[in-house]
Amino acid sequence: MEKINHEFYMKKVLDLAKKGKGLVNPNPKVGAIIVKNGEIISEGYHKYYGGPHAEVYALKNAKKDIKGATLYVNLEPCSHYGKTPSCAVAVSKSGIKTVVIAMKDPNPKVSGKGIKILEDSGIEVINGIMEKESKRLNEVFIKHITTKEPFVLMKTASTLDGKIATKTGESKWITGEKSREKVHSVRNEYMGIMVGINTVLKDDPLLTTRIEKGRDPKVIVIDSKLKIPKECKILKTVNDRKIYIACTDKCNKEKKEYLKQIGVNIIELKGNKEERVPLKNLMKVLGEKGLDSILLEGGGTLNFSALKEKIVDKAMCFVAPKIIGGKESKAMIEGEGISHLKDVFTLSSCSVETIGEDILIEGYINK
Amino acid sequence: MEKINHEFYMKKVLDLAKKGKGLVNPNPKVGAIIVKNGEIISEGYHKYYGGPHAEVYALKNAKKDIKGATLYVNLEPCSHYGKTPSCAVAVSKSGIKTVVIAMKDPNPKVSGKGIKILEDSGIEVINGIMEKESKRLNEVFIKHITTKEPFVLMKTASTLDGKIATKTGESKWITGEKSREKVHSVRNEYMGIMVGINTVLKDDPLLTTRIEKGRDPKVIVIDSKLKIPKECKILKTVNDRKIYIACTDKCNKEKKEYLKQIGVNIIELKGNKEERVPLKNLMKVLGEKGLDSILLEGGGTLNFSALKEKIVDKAMCFVAPKIIGGKESKAMIEGEGISHLKDVFTLSSCSVETIGEDILIEGYINK
Repeated sequence: MEKINHEFYMKKVLDLAKKGKGLVNPNPKVGAIIVKNGEIISEGYHKYYGGPHAEVYALKNAKKDIKGATLYVNLEPCSHYGKTPSCAVAVSKSGIKTVVIAMKDPNPKVSGKGIKILEDSGIEVINGIMEKESKRLNEVFIKHITTKEPFVLMKTASTLDGKIATKTGESKWITGEKSREKVHSVRNEYMGIMVGINTVLKDDPLLTTRIEKGRDPKVIVIDSKLKIPKECKILKTVNDRKIYIACTDKCNKEKKEYLKQIGVNIIELKGNKEERVPLKNLMKVLGEKGLDSILLEGGGTLNFSALKEKIVDKAMCFVAPKIIGGKESKAMIEGEGISHLKDVFTLSSCSVETIGEDILIEGYINK
Repeated sequence: MEKINHEFYMKKVLDLAKKGKGLVNPNPKVGAIIVKNGEIISEGYHKYYGGPHAEVYALKNAKKDIKGATLYVNLEPCSHYGKTPSCAVAVSKSGIKTVVIAMKDPNPKVSGKGIKILEDSGIEVINGIMEKESKRLNEVFIKHITTKEPFVLMKTASTLDGKIATKTGESKWITGEKSREKVHSVRNEYMGIMVGINTVLKDDPLLTTRIEKGRDPKVIVIDSKLKIPKECKILKTVNDRKIYIACTDKCNKEKKEYLKQIGVNIIELKGNKEERVPLKNLMKVLGEKGLDSILLEGGGTLNFSALKEKIVDKAMCFVAPKIIGGKESKAMIEGEGISHLKDVFTLSSCSVETIGEDILIEGYINK
């Protein structure tokens, strides 16, 4: 009975936390509620990067005396002064009797320290309620805080037979309107969006977030030789948002200077044995620059390289109930492909849902 | 209230009808129950080809007097003497007061005649209860009786990116055990199984139904030049079941004589402009021979030809949560592919379910 109550309240906490989507990065999404005698007497969530933590809101907003109450929060309260004071200390002084949390702070430097502060002050701490759901909600934060690299979501939009364009290059549109809307809502949550130079040359995309009050992600273009056309749409947005172009040391130096001059951030890396941009190294560089999340909207070549270099954390595959066929049609994953089934890329914890006419399959790439 | 009751009983009727799966072809799957004062007093279903119809079982099996009762049956009772006497006449003489049916007989020659017999005898007939579900259950029968051609189900088993083998040809196994079991249960329901010569040369499949008490489908091999190896596994089963090999007039005549001699049924057709077997014509021939249903387990080339020639009625796509990638890997649909999106093959009434680790997407091909 006790356990059922905890999950009931934690679910509400996760719903609150979700309100921070796209607003708090690279911070985690956190919600908090305070319950006394079965009544929710306060709630709060982390609203924007640098703003007060969820617990602070909840402690302040209580409609009644919080003495003896239970605090539910989906992440261990922080132990340290960062941009805001320590929540664990604030909670320990508040009169709260019990703290129920979903998961420990994944940051190895501070994990468990918040719990210790609470317990040392005599508060009972219950940990692990809806831990799996909570980890999923903050998958980006967890990846970034533990590896310093961005969480990479590979998005594809294909026919049932894995094609993204006909042999003549027609690709508008394979998937339906609702699927495309959903992609824009993901763009709004992710800090960066990454494409290959072939996509720029072929589609000349804008890569903005076309939803109300949306914010545009930073752009990362993989362009080893710097073939990007000066007049492409992306470069026209260079004053509105950060644009990174990753190239190799074999790039066109003149173009490099031009791009720098107009405000592009060039990331030059030593090319790998195929003279391509080494994606794993690039992720390290982008992670250091504070990018916690990248939406990969690549063509078949870049998608395969990303899988091969093991930078993809999750796949989001929109599948339209259509068939294109043909060996020469563009496929969602091309490159050289794997040679043996023992090396096949596998997805786990898959979920399936219908989005309008399409089917959305999501799963985590096993590394 | 009345309507809810009808659907409640019709659902039971459809469940009974399903028991005839794989046993009644080319007859329809039919179930029947008799309800009196809210009590089910009898039930029956069509058990085997040529055997008594569902209504006959239900009329005979009643535990109580059926006078004034309601008969539920998913197909209009037959008006004509075929292998069995007219069910409509039998029902009209039985004392049944009301007959609730899901759909009319799709055979244009007799459609509505059974209802007329019932109504002329003073019975109230209610038609159209769970019609959609009923049509789906008897999709094979409906196609065959109205067009004289077999219903073709294209089965594929691919990765998320539409591949059925690596570039080195490894294909065992892409999908999981449960998906493969399901394929065998479909083989048990379908009268024929069709493959191309490339599949025979590459995989040397047996194409049997590997389930308890299963029956093996007839085999159709598309082999325009008759390249089938004399020692392949399929030919070893020629004494146990019918094997059709479809070739063109440019086939190897000596091989043709050999195959005929060992008992193979050769269907020789004039080749189309690519010197391939004209699949639409082949379907007419096979339909005339009584084949009501064909499971197409083709490779990418045959699958595309089948779509292009518009012989495919339904697709059954098993998708494993795996990625192979590569332009040279074998894809589920190859051939020349469509050139323009306006010609894309589309599926309607799609359903999605998980089968073990895999995802099964089914839908009807719009023609």
